[in-house]
Amino acid sequence: MTDPTTDPTDGVSGSRRRIYLDWNATAPLRPEARDAMLAALDLVGNPSSVHAEGRAVRAVVDTARAAVAALVGAQAHGLVFTSGGTEANALALTPGLTAGTGAAPRDRLLVSEIEHASVWAGGRFPTNAVATVPVTAAGAVDLAALAARLAAITAETPAARPLVSIMHANNETGVVQPIRAAADIVHAAGGLLHVDAVQSAGRIVCDIGALGADLMSLSAHKLGGPKGAGALVLGASALHITDPLLRGGGQERGLRAGTENIAAIAGFGAAAAAAARDLAADGPLMQSRRDRLEAEVMRTTPGTVVLGGAAPRLPNTTLLAHPGLRAETALIALDLAGLAVSSGAACSSGKVAASRVLAAMGIDPALAAGAIRVSLGPTTTERDTDAFVTAWNGLVRRLSRGGCGIAA
Amino acid sequence: MTDPTTDPTDGVSGSRRRIYLDWNATAPLRPEARDAMLAALDLVGNPSSVHAEGRAVRAVVDTARAAVAALVGAQAHGLVFTSGGTEANALALTPGLTAGTGAAPRDRLLVSEIEHASVWAGGRFPTNAVATVPVTAAGAVDLAALAARLAAITAETPAARPLVSIMHANNETGVVQPIRAAADIVHAAGGLLHVDAVQSAGRIVCDIGALGADLMSLSAHKLGGPKGAGALVLGASALHITDPLLRGGGQERGLRAGTENIAAIAGFGAAAAAAARDLAADGPLMQSRRDRLEAEVMRTTPGTVVLGGAAPRLPNTTLLAHPGLRAETALIALDLAGLAVSSGAACSSGKVAASRVLAAMGIDPALAAGAIRVSLGPTTTERDTDAFVTAWNGLVRRLSRGGCGIAA
Repeated sequence: MTDPTTDPTDGVSGSRRRIYLDWNATAPLRPEARDAMLAALDLVGNPSSVHAEGRAVRAVVDTARAAVAALVGAQAHGLVFTSGGTEANALALTPGLTAGTGAAPRDRLLVSEIEHASVWAGGRFPTNAVATVPVTAAGAVDLAALAARLAAITAETPAARPLVSIMHANNETGVVQPIRAAADIVHAAGGLLHVDAVQSAGRIVCDIGALGADLMSLSAHKLGGPKGAGALVLGASALHITDPLLRGGGQERGLRAGTENIAAIAGFGAAAAAAARDLAADGPLMQSRRDRLEAEVMRTTPGTVVLGGAAPRLPNTTLLAHPGLRAETALIALDLAGLAVSSGAACSSGKVAASRVLAAMGIDPALAAGAIRVSLGPTTTERDTDAFVTAWNGLVRRLSRGGCGIAA
Repeated sequence: MTDPTTDPTDGVSGSRRRIYLDWNATAPLRPEARDAMLAALDLVGNPSSVHAEGRAVRAVVDTARAAVAALVGAQAHGLVFTSGGTEANALALTPGLTAGTGAAPRDRLLVSEIEHASVWAGGRFPTNAVATVPVTAAGAVDLAALAARLAAITAETPAARPLVSIMHANNETGVVQPIRAAADIVHAAGGLLHVDAVQSAGRIVCDIGALGADLMSLSAHKLGGPKGAGALVLGASALHITDPLLRGGGQERGLRAGTENIAAIAGFGAAAAAAARDLAADGPLMQSRRDRLEAEVMRTTPGTVVLGGAAPRLPNTTLLAHPGLRAETALIALDLAGLAVSSGAACSSGKVAASRVLAAMGIDPALAAGAIRVSLGPTTTERDTDAFVTAWNGLVRRLSRGGCGIAA
């Protein structure tokens, strides 16, 4: 992904050079994914049709399924394509998730306090069956609290069958969660573990078996595939979803009805293959750029804080805050300066809301209100990160002069 | 759509010319849709982001929303993009559909016996709250039976709030349903009408207001857009869905969480605009080809029956049957002869199952087992339909000699 013709900053009109540092919101499409999509768009046929056209399109889906499954060390037959990460999470979080034929449904859902909104919504569990697990000040799920919550459930209902959902890496802070340890705790309590790996897959090693996850959600557009494709991966155990979200046709082994999104699935597969190929090189590259950015910000603008910086993190993410800075005005100023960054999670309403994640970490609300997320990709250059450092510096300097960017 | 470079038969490898007559399963991508998708794929950004990249992508969604809404005479703000027709149907068919603030939920669902599997599944209504409405021998919903069912519901529960789902045109027979008359009956009984217009939109005039529909489902890939996009259109009334299927982010006014499928939505919009532009010319063109095909089949292979032929139909669809012919073997023989057709609905499992639609019409099961659906598009030529007539002729001739294609 070092071809200059794929520079993501070319996608926005205007003579000014744009610098895209919002890869956690969405990553630019990888050239391999684009090529696969173009080829798929030229195929006619419904994969459910038995004629040659149908079979050709079916083969595209099968190839992509194998590539995406391989990225996370899963079996292709356990992968269900969805319309994205949100649908994968919605499909996973259901009482109708059973382990083995004739097994009883899940009766409790535990989610960490820093989950994505689509997990936080609780899937198809009744509200009174959902409980939360706190995180530490460093932004990692509190394993002792997890064990205590599960023990309390078991004490109350010895035959309880909880489902626990913990993300692999947080979208705002980049903090990588202790999934393997959490899995051991969950399994010891007779539970199943769902892992939202939307932000981690393609950026760090993400192996469903090594992590001990029973289910894993993926999204294509976070790893260089297109928007509109995701997957729910079922682990090795005899998991079964008795109540699919979309019913009708028998696609995806009956687990997800509806004509398959061929082009997006093809792009997902190609992006997954490219991500797997490049992972060993891209991870350290992004980390060196991110670490340099943080070091320069700290050196040039004292008082800047890296939120979640004490924990293991994704190599591409940094969440910066400075007392007095307001994210809303800072975002606009940075945008005008040609820099695309985010205030924590991408806000679906176009408004900047208080971060639930930072509140869960116990971050001072005034500091949290100024948090700016910078997320890099494999094509991010030192020139890009230096430009951000300069702009950040300017924001903080204006702050000390009482100008734009000051909190009310 | 007469550019020979977009000949859908080019999409399958092999030196033999392919003839694609399965447009009801999926239509080839329109060139306008392909262009719009390519442009969208080159944009970076999440439409929920406030920066320039995000706003550019947001504009693509807004443009497409206006184009799709215009195709069915709806207001853009009442249109919710989904991952396809199945999801649109699943979103629509819920007790949580209310008319006006504080209104009570729907308590009964009535679906016609010829609905698509995704409607037949009943959405989120409990099984005991779902009832069916029969069709006539001609394949149209039985309006007297509809009125009687609603009257029975009202007699039992005077304050009943039924939701009725009737498709605009049937996918297997092409029979266009008496939606306007059904809407009047449903509304008189205090009900709401959902119309699955997946097969009709872009092929015949499909105006939500003129039809009297309260909700309408659309699919991009049936009208020359890509697979992976659909829409649920809410009519002019103050409808609200209190329990969206996908929850989390606030996309689509909170009615459908998840990052928007930008490329597919862009393609959907372009295809809808092209379909609206071409409708007046393409409809009669397809009908003339279809009528010629039927006349030639009748002339050359006596005994062939056009199922649903007595009712008003889509201009592009014909469902043919011949005593003794088996669809499974006929499909394979036609495929080998270069012809892509279908046995009624596209089968999601790759197997040919008995048609629920034909059973509902009271068609003799032995005859129904041989039904072959031929569905045309705007680029279908007389040469294409003549090739089918010749092949059909051959099948029936072989039949009389006791060869391939004979029922066991």
